[in-house]
Amino acid sequence: MKLWYSPSSPFVRKVIVAAHELGLADRIEIVEASTSPVNRHAGLAALNPAGKIPAMELDDGQVLFDSRVICAYLDTLKPGLVPASGPQRFKVMTAEALGDAIMDAAVLTRYETAIRPQDMRWKGWIEGQMTKVWAALDSLENDWLDFLKGPLTMGHIAIGSALGYLDFRYADSGWRDTRPGLAKWYEAFARRPSMVASEPPRG
Amino acid sequence: MKLWYSPSSPFVRKVIVAAHELGLADRIEIVEASTSPVNRHAGLAALNPAGKIPAMELDDGQVLFDSRVICAYLDTLKPGLVPASGPQRFKVMTAEALGDAIMDAAVLTRYETAIRPQDMRWKGWIEGQMTKVWAALDSLENDWLDFLKGPLTMGHIAIGSALGYLDFRYADSGWRDTRPGLAKWYEAFARRPSMVASEPPRG
Repeated sequence: MKLWYSPSSPFVRKVIVAAHELGLADRIEIVEASTSPVNRHAGLAALNPAGKIPAMELDDGQVLFDSRVICAYLDTLKPGLVPASGPQRFKVMTAEALGDAIMDAAVLTRYETAIRPQDMRWKGWIEGQMTKVWAALDSLENDWLDFLKGPLTMGHIAIGSALGYLDFRYADSGWRDTRPGLAKWYEAFARRPSMVASEPPRG
Repeated sequence: MKLWYSPSSPFVRKVIVAAHELGLADRIEIVEASTSPVNRHAGLAALNPAGKIPAMELDDGQVLFDSRVICAYLDTLKPGLVPASGPQRFKVMTAEALGDAIMDAAVLTRYETAIRPQDMRWKGWIEGQMTKVWAALDSLENDWLDFLKGPLTMGHIAIGSALGYLDFRYADSGWRDTRPGLAKWYEAFARRPSMVASEPPRG
């Protein structure tokens, strides 16, 4: 299967980490595709009309997107990251959605501060999006540590990928200062081979 | 269960339509919450730190978000909208992701043209987001009509909710002009009682 990929996308990283954790990484061929909301990649857009990575082409030609769908698919090839049923299934899926929401808000802020022309950047938007990020991190610290200390799931992978993106794009945010439990969890999580293998480029 | 709700959100509409189609609508209590990226709703943010609707509080206190997770949960109470396994499962999930991507891009454009201060609106962003929308509609016309004509799934509901949002916010777009097959499908779909019951407010 082919994964349309960019090394700086946290949503792609989520897929890569899941693939590593499931022992599927060597079955995935990487196709690098640089894309943004104002600069579509034609080859990618032919597969995913939203123009977004990640997208996955299966060997039979079926195309899957977005990251959540691809990860759910990988989890059927070698199940293990999402409980099949029960309240824990929806706890895991909500944790994944929380990780995705952090990424969404952080990526939208990145578009605002890096690709939007300078005189059109809106402080209220940046503050609104980053409030989502910091409130989500507070919630992880206050409500989710027991979950995070439990067995590895897609929720852990999404949250870990989101924190990795914050360190990549907002390295000076000091998010650890007021969230010692989350910082400690992430310190160990970031050392997993799956996370090390998928680190975004530096600088 | 309690659903945090706004009548103009297409993501909320997806949940409402799914609940109606599954025969679960009368088990859901509605909590209206007006929110935007620059104007958080405190009560909602206490449940979902991303501050977004829909969020669902189950009777045992568990909180589920986002729309995709809530719909997957409803589908376990009375299964029927997502095949349990096989390629068709991931076809349905990708169709839902495509509908969600249309909503995401259309809602981002709405924020740009309705809540952002006028002198900070960026034409390139609006064009980039709406290109996603129109390309997704082209893909629905060219690649998805057979799927859409098949049995009702979460994919249909997401795509129908997305098209409903376009009619609500972009009524003059003329999307039907070049997509007769999709227009015809939606004409019938929009008449379903679930869609009629969840129509966004006019004007």
